[in-house]
Amino acid sequence: VTARAVSRKAKRGRVLSFIREKEETSRGEIAREFSLDKKAVSVMVDELLSERILAVNGFRDSGSNPVRGRRREVLAINGAHSAYIGIDLGATHITGVLSDLAGTVLERAYFEVRPGLPVDLILDQMKTISARLLSREKDTGGVRAVGVCVPGFVHPRAGVSLVAENIPGWRDVRVREIFQKEVGRPVALEDASRAFATAERWLGTCRGLRDFIALDLGYGIGMGMYAGGTLHTGSAWKSGEIGHTVVDPEGLHCACGNNGCLETVASGRAIARQASDGIRAGRSALLHDLTHGNAESVTAQDVALAASMKDPFSTGLLEAAGSAVGLALANAVNLLNPSVVVLGGGLVSAGRPLINALASSLARCTMPGIREDMRLTVSELGGDSSARGMAQIAAEDVFAGE
Amino acid sequence: VTARAVSRKAKRGRVLSFIREKEETSRGEIAREFSLDKKAVSVMVDELLSERILAVNGFRDSGSNPVRGRRREVLAINGAHSAYIGIDLGATHITGVLSDLAGTVLERAYFEVRPGLPVDLILDQMKTISARLLSREKDTGGVRAVGVCVPGFVHPRAGVSLVAENIPGWRDVRVREIFQKEVGRPVALEDASRAFATAERWLGTCRGLRDFIALDLGYGIGMGMYAGGTLHTGSAWKSGEIGHTVVDPEGLHCACGNNGCLETVASGRAIARQASDGIRAGRSALLHDLTHGNAESVTAQDVALAASMKDPFSTGLLEAAGSAVGLALANAVNLLNPSVVVLGGGLVSAGRPLINALASSLARCTMPGIREDMRLTVSELGGDSSARGMAQIAAEDVFAGE
Repeated sequence: VTARAVSRKAKRGRVLSFIREKEETSRGEIAREFSLDKKAVSVMVDELLSERILAVNGFRDSGSNPVRGRRREVLAINGAHSAYIGIDLGATHITGVLSDLAGTVLERAYFEVRPGLPVDLILDQMKTISARLLSREKDTGGVRAVGVCVPGFVHPRAGVSLVAENIPGWRDVRVREIFQKEVGRPVALEDASRAFATAERWLGTCRGLRDFIALDLGYGIGMGMYAGGTLHTGSAWKSGEIGHTVVDPEGLHCACGNNGCLETVASGRAIARQASDGIRAGRSALLHDLTHGNAESVTAQDVALAASMKDPFSTGLLEAAGSAVGLALANAVNLLNPSVVVLGGGLVSAGRPLINALASSLARCTMPGIREDMRLTVSELGGDSSARGMAQIAAEDVFAGE
Repeated sequence: VTARAVSRKAKRGRVLSFIREKEETSRGEIAREFSLDKKAVSVMVDELLSERILAVNGFRDSGSNPVRGRRREVLAINGAHSAYIGIDLGATHITGVLSDLAGTVLERAYFEVRPGLPVDLILDQMKTISARLLSREKDTGGVRAVGVCVPGFVHPRAGVSLVAENIPGWRDVRVREIFQKEVGRPVALEDASRAFATAERWLGTCRGLRDFIALDLGYGIGMGMYAGGTLHTGSAWKSGEIGHTVVDPEGLHCACGNNGCLETVASGRAIARQASDGIRAGRSALLHDLTHGNAESVTAQDVALAASMKDPFSTGLLEAAGSAVGLALANAVNLLNPSVVVLGGGLVSAGRPLINALASSLARCTMPGIREDMRLTVSELGGDSSARGMAQIAAEDVFAGE
């Protein structure tokens, strides 16, 4: 491989990202964006068309030159070119998607996971999901890669999931090795919150934004962010640990080893723990009835249901959680000055008490001048957002390494 | 200007940044870094040498090919090519430097500023400093640009300093317009903490690092950061407001409009206010004597002096401030996963009580796994770091816009 070939491929990768982001573009637009001359653009675009990575989506009048009446090609990614599997392992679920090169979901698969399940069984469930999705390969341009995301510390280059505090026993899992053997294709690995942010960046409400925060509120609390147009990873792929913002140095012990982390007061896990204490203390007859008096079994979803039925104790729990998250988020916003904060994860569906309290404490604690630049929104991608983002990352890796 | 010429200049800019960062390099190294062929590198390097932007700093044996005994040129930035002025406006000082293209300081100028001085007088002092530095131009390759940094919100593209909370009356100051008229050269503008981070990145302890945090502890508290190798600005150039981390929603009113910001408990300004209250309440005989009983006039530097003389009240103030900063910093570290946190600003010289308390609360509240990846250090650049970083930014802008 010559230096020139490397440079050519890097340029192709950047042009593809650009087209993916714009959804539709033209040769002229590519030339302007990359300061390329007409001939260089033509060579590259013709090549991408002949490889069926790009497709011509019809023609449009050229606004820049209406007199000469020219019509320009509309260039777009050809979704049918290839497909990618994304698998999202959470503390309470495994979600898988098969999506095409344009990010359209072709097939979904989902398992609930009981917290505390042995690691081997979790891996078996993940393999079952990937096999199920792979069985649809014949309907695609071919599955080119698989992406797996896990909450917690990952080493994407080594393909190792180092630790996921909310999945007991999950340590140094060689995700790439395990799945490459299973599926015989390249396997990408990332943190689940960063996969969520990636989905928002390419497919969701943050499309095209250079600076935004994606907050993943679930059994744990994680954050993915784009900084200056790039997915932020930090120096050792450990960025985004907003769940371990210390909100009370004298607070409860956290699974991470510190005390008083946000996750100990506001995560799905913490809400369930507080609800369980509340049931035992007789503070909510409704929660008691919903769980048939089995305080241990209560979940954040039960609390959300009870709150929607106007249970004051449950409403209070969600409000307190939202308020704590809003404060930590405000501090993150003050540091990062994002244009959008997008909320996702299972707790977001826990309803208005949590979201309202979050929004109000976020507004109160964000610095004036930064607050006005920021929009708070809820993800529209739903429960498979991290899996979709992970399929996207797997595709990016394929094209970057081509 | 053709598209090709734009592309060529962009490439030149990236190559120059690379050489600046490496300090010394060779044609082969440039070729490998940018995937360029030998001829393209030769054309570019010969051009940079003929323009005297680069210089050959001797020759060195080529390690890669000892048998053929080749000696490779050592290429470096030619500092003498041109010079840049950097001016740092703080709440208590104006610092100016004249530095060459390689970042070496040729001349310094400094004024203390009494907090509360009218904006016009501050601008006059800044102009005096720039005139003084400009008078040394004959000893340089020519002053090509001036950079000005101010704490607070700036709009670098418009050249307007929007607001600096700690400088009363400083609002919407058209810094570029004012100084361009004064010096007749391009004027760059940035936030002072980002200028500090830039100095650390190119000239200080963070040279070559992709992810680090530069904390600017002075009359106010600001933060500059590099994320993935790039100076982080946020969506509207407002990132880094760690001083407005809410540490107590029920706390004191802050100049920003919110309550309980870190700056209200731990900045130089807050320490002075607490010391002043303490003197009036008779809690420190030493501070009383050091200020001749004039409680209003006490500064954070007086508190530092008293602490170094073992005054328990002053030591306690610095420890409480350090501890609060350490907590806010830990939360920033958990979000950003930097490899280094570098401390600068006037308060850093306030001595061990503050730094020790900061380090210990930072260690306690940073998430295990992230803590181990991070090194805490104190800037070695001294009081003119922001001014030096600003001269650097002014130079970068000249080369980017060439």
